[in-house]
Amino acid sequence: MNKKELFENIKRKRSFLCVGLDTDIKKIPEHLLGEEDPIFAFNKEIIDATADLCVAYKPNLAFYESLGVTGWIAFEKTVKYIKEKYPDQFIIADAKRGDIGNTSEMYARSFFEHLDIDSVTVAPYMGEDSVKPFLVYPDRWVIVLALTSNKGSHDFQLTEDKNGERLFEKVLRKSQTWATQDQMMFVVGATQGKLFEDIRKVAPDHFLLVPGVGAQGGSLEDVAKYGMNDMCGLLVNSSRAIIYADKTENFSKAAREEAEKVQKAMNELLTEKGI
Amino acid sequence: MNKKELFENIKRKRSFLCVGLDTDIKKIPEHLLGEEDPIFAFNKEIIDATADLCVAYKPNLAFYESLGVTGWIAFEKTVKYIKEKYPDQFIIADAKRGDIGNTSEMYARSFFEHLDIDSVTVAPYMGEDSVKPFLVYPDRWVIVLALTSNKGSHDFQLTEDKNGERLFEKVLRKSQTWATQDQMMFVVGATQGKLFEDIRKVAPDHFLLVPGVGAQGGSLEDVAKYGMNDMCGLLVNSSRAIIYADKTENFSKAAREEAEKVQKAMNELLTEKGI
Repeated sequence: MNKKELFENIKRKRSFLCVGLDTDIKKIPEHLLGEEDPIFAFNKEIIDATADLCVAYKPNLAFYESLGVTGWIAFEKTVKYIKEKYPDQFIIADAKRGDIGNTSEMYARSFFEHLDIDSVTVAPYMGEDSVKPFLVYPDRWVIVLALTSNKGSHDFQLTEDKNGERLFEKVLRKSQTWATQDQMMFVVGATQGKLFEDIRKVAPDHFLLVPGVGAQGGSLEDVAKYGMNDMCGLLVNSSRAIIYADKTENFSKAAREEAEKVQKAMNELLTEKGI
Repeated sequence: MNKKELFENIKRKRSFLCVGLDTDIKKIPEHLLGEEDPIFAFNKEIIDATADLCVAYKPNLAFYESLGVTGWIAFEKTVKYIKEKYPDQFIIADAKRGDIGNTSEMYARSFFEHLDIDSVTVAPYMGEDSVKPFLVYPDRWVIVLALTSNKGSHDFQLTEDKNGERLFEKVLRKSQTWATQDQMMFVVGATQGKLFEDIRKVAPDHFLLVPGVGAQGGSLEDVAKYGMNDMCGLLVNSSRAIIYADKTENFSKAAREEAEKVQKAMNELLTEKGI
């Protein structure tokens, strides 16, 4: 999916919501545990209940890997299900990969060739040649970690160099020399509040993937206030607050209600921005 | 495996070699492609041919993931095979993971609970709470990226802060406050040469996992000269130079010959150090 198509979906659905599929076998409703593939059964219901309210799904690889092969089967089935039934959804493999060139090539092969996914999150620590192998696929996106939503983001990402440039700013600046804004997004945590202004100084036009709204406590209003641009430029993710809104047989209905609340707020924010 | 056991293995085998299982379906000998699981068949032969010459195996997750579920099956079989037949081998899941706390917990569950692996490589960009969930498992190791072997290591890892501390040094210093040297190692690329001296100033006693000897051009002698400590403190990895030494039916014999050359050189370096 390219940038224009993504923006069209946002305008049509009045939403820039990404639903995070952090599906944990220990947290899904009990009645699903008897299913042949409980993880996929859960995802399928969540997806069917929310697909008209969001523009993206973000399966978090860790949750699938924690079950080994069984988890990977559920992950692949989930991706295939979204692609076939809801081809207008932007799929993000939240994998935070990154390695030397020949190894990143293999990760790119996994996500873009084997699974035909739109985008993958990538850690920047290893620099240019760890990111570039992901950039040879047309209309596929690399989403580089810039300023994450967690407390540990303060450990290294805010370190200032001799010229006063912070590491996340250097990542934003340097990585823009590796790809256009039609192939690259950045991860910026919703919990970072006013720092979004600093992000937009360095990367005014890029799409940002914003986790941290919901269970992590970030404010959607602040994110929109400081981060939204003329093409929206935001994919705001919510995982736990939506998918675990209820743990009974009613779970997908409750997930829909939560997603609907977010979508309504997003509709207003888009309108305020004139989108 | 704890540090003392690892050191005992190094002394007994006169080797600090780690064989990297970067098994690529496009590079293995053709005659194996007819096997039910060519990747596992290849690994099995490589392992049997080299197990007495090395102290560790490092499957590189990217290579397995590139085949999706099929690759994960081969990965799990490989780990199981090593654990059962060669329980004195230290196993490193080269995964370079790292995410917010609740997600890193899932990665830890995958590698330490589900697969019962000794150690996993972790990217430090997201800071303390992305690494800590890996540290709750006794006798399991976290191997933090410090100064990697690739060209892109210069993009961010060498950035000096206002006090002249480089990012890799800050990573070494800060991460030591999260765990003891009995639970943490660092990745330092063999291609970094004299920078090993700077590493040892900040982390004199830690084990270092050193990729980049062989195909990437790093020098084993330099690594030992600048990086070896009284407990050896080094696991030097070679992947391609060993496992793809030959691409005919003779491949495992050729791999053994390459591993033997490295082991002999390591024996001398250990002797020189009085180990």
